[in-house]
Amino acid sequence: MIILNKEEMKRAVTMKEAVNLASEALRLYTSGKSNIPLRTGINIEKSNGNALFMPGYVDEIHAAGIKIVSIFPDNHKIGLPAVPASMILLDANTGVVSAVMDGTYLTQLRTGAVAGCATELLSRKDSKIMALIGTGGQAKAQVEAVLSVRNIEEIKVFDLSNDEAEAFASMLRYELKDFQGNIKTSKTSVECIEDADIITTITTSKIPTFDGSKVKLGAHINAMGSYTPDSRELDEVILDRASLIYLDTLDGVLSEAGDFIIPMENKRFSKEKIMGELGELILSKTKSREDENQITVFKSVGTAVLDIVTAKGIYEKAKNMNMGREVTL
Amino acid sequence: MIILNKEEMKRAVTMKEAVNLASEALRLYTSGKSNIPLRTGINIEKSNGNALFMPGYVDEIHAAGIKIVSIFPDNHKIGLPAVPASMILLDANTGVVSAVMDGTYLTQLRTGAVAGCATELLSRKDSKIMALIGTGGQAKAQVEAVLSVRNIEEIKVFDLSNDEAEAFASMLRYELKDFQGNIKTSKTSVECIEDADIITTITTSKIPTFDGSKVKLGAHINAMGSYTPDSRELDEVILDRASLIYLDTLDGVLSEAGDFIIPMENKRFSKEKIMGELGELILSKTKSREDENQITVFKSVGTAVLDIVTAKGIYEKAKNMNMGREVTL
Repeated sequence: MIILNKEEMKRAVTMKEAVNLASEALRLYTSGKSNIPLRTGINIEKSNGNALFMPGYVDEIHAAGIKIVSIFPDNHKIGLPAVPASMILLDANTGVVSAVMDGTYLTQLRTGAVAGCATELLSRKDSKIMALIGTGGQAKAQVEAVLSVRNIEEIKVFDLSNDEAEAFASMLRYELKDFQGNIKTSKTSVECIEDADIITTITTSKIPTFDGSKVKLGAHINAMGSYTPDSRELDEVILDRASLIYLDTLDGVLSEAGDFIIPMENKRFSKEKIMGELGELILSKTKSREDENQITVFKSVGTAVLDIVTAKGIYEKAKNMNMGREVTL
Repeated sequence: MIILNKEEMKRAVTMKEAVNLASEALRLYTSGKSNIPLRTGINIEKSNGNALFMPGYVDEIHAAGIKIVSIFPDNHKIGLPAVPASMILLDANTGVVSAVMDGTYLTQLRTGAVAGCATELLSRKDSKIMALIGTGGQAKAQVEAVLSVRNIEEIKVFDLSNDEAEAFASMLRYELKDFQGNIKTSKTSVECIEDADIITTITTSKIPTFDGSKVKLGAHINAMGSYTPDSRELDEVILDRASLIYLDTLDGVLSEAGDFIIPMENKRFSKEKIMGELGELILSKTKSREDENQITVFKSVGTAVLDIVTAKGIYEKAKNMNMGREVTL
C-alpha cells in the first residue's frame, strides 16, 4: 500500500482532472452503479468529538474504500485541524488496502471539483466575475475549480469577518500565480454577488448567505456549504427565480440540506421544481441552460462516490508517476 | 501515524500481554463501556468478495478505530490471503489516525488471547493435555494462548485432512522453541479429544467437530471457530454435560453462532443454562469452576472491542519501544 499526503495528491491530479473525476462520479452515482451504505457515526463525548465512517463501493470502476472524518472542534486549541480525515482505498480485486491518503485534502479537492463540474455544465460560457462567500478550509479549491472551467477576470470574496476575507484574498493573490485577473474583497454579501456571473457559497451558515433578489440574470450559483437540516445558504427567492436547479444527489440533499428542507416544510418550495441530479445532465437525459438570462443553481452535500472515484483516480496517477511512500503491513 | 506489520506487532506484545488485554476488553464490553455500531458489509460481486467495516469506540481507555476485513476466497489463486484485514486506530483525543496495522495478525492474536483468558479462568490448573481441532490461519495463536496460561505437556492436533494436521504439527515443533512437551497428530477427533484437559476447536465446520459424550470430566472447551447461524462446532451433548457455559458476548453468540442457535431452535437447549459473559466472571460477578470434575465451555464469536483494546495496547507498547514506521499524511 502507498501513503499519499496532500502535496503528493496535488502533484498527482490537477483540478481539471479532478473535475473530470467528479463528473464520472456523479454519472456513476446517478446510474446506480455504486453501493454506498449509511455512514456510521461514533460520538466521542470525552473529547467533544465525532468520528464518521463512510464506506462505499463503485462497481463500474471497481473501487472500494472508506473515508474516516473526525469532527473535533477543540482540536484548534492544540494547533490541529478541527476535521482531520483519512481516506482508505481498497483494491476491489483482492480487498487489500491499496492506499491511505489525506482525507481533508481529498474532501477539499472533490468538493471543489464537483462545483467545477456543475459550473462547466450550467454557467454561461462568458462568465467573468466569480463571487465567493466563505473563506474556510474548502474555499480555495472552490476558486481553483471555477478557474479551471471558465475564463474568470475578477474574484470577489466575502466573509462575515472582513479580516478573514482580506487574509484569504492575499493568500489567493500569492497562490494563484497563473491568474491574471483581479482579486478583491467585498464589504457586504450584496456587493459581493450583485454583478457576479458565478456565485459560490461555502459556509456553515444557519441563514441564507445572500439576498436572492439581488442575483443578476444569467448567473450560476454553487451552494456547497450546508449539509444539515438546520443550516442553509440559499433563500427562497433564489430557489424561486432559478430556472434550473440541479443537485449532486437527490436523496442526500433532500434529507440533509436545510436550503431545501426548510422552504419545503414552510410550503415555500416544491421539490417538483428540481430538475434532478447533475448526473442526469452528464448522462444527457435532462436539459441545461437554454438562454443567457436563466439563473441556475447547483446544490451539493457530497457523497462517498465522489471520494472513492477521486481517490482511485489519484491513486492510479500516483502509481504511474511512481509517487507515494510504499509501506507493507 | 505509524505503520505496524505482523513482526513488529509480535515484538510489541507477547501472548501473555494479549491475554491481559483480552481480559480488559471483555470487562469493558460487559460493563457497557464501549460503543460498537453494527458492522457494515459491502458485497463486491465481481471479485466474489465482501468487505466488512467494523468501527468502534471504547470509552474507558479512550480508544477508537475500525477493522476492515475483506473476505475474498479467490485470493488464494494469486497467492494472497483469503481474508486480508487492516486495523485503523484513531487517537480518541483528536480523531487523527494514529496507526495502521496488520488486521489479520491482530485477529489471530486477539482470538487466541480471548481463548487464553477463558482457559485461565475456567480450566483446571493442572491441565496437561491440549487438543486442537482445526489447523487454519488462527490455529497457532490458539495454541500459544493456552501455553501462556497452563503448563501443557502434550498438544494433540486433529484436522479433517491428515496431511494438514501433520504439516501444522511440524510447523509447531519448529516454531514453539520453548515448548518442551510432545506435539502429535490424531487420526480421529475422538482420539484427539478423549483424554484432553483443554479442547480448542477453531474451524468453519457446519457440523459439530467432536463427540461431546467422549469429553472427559474436568475438561475445558474453547469453541472459537463458528460465527454464522448455520455453522457449529459444539454438539448438544457437550452443552448438556457442561456445568458452566460462558460467552464472549451474549448478543453476539446468540445471534451469530449455530452452536447455540441450532439447538435452541430444536428445543434441545435453553439459554437459561448459559452462565453469562466471561466479562462477568472477570468482574467477579459470577462463579467459576467449583470442582475438578466440572466441564466448562467458552464460546466466542469476537467483538470489535477486542480489536480496539488489543490494537491500542500494541500501539502504546510499539510507541514506547520506538517501533513502527512513522508516516505523515
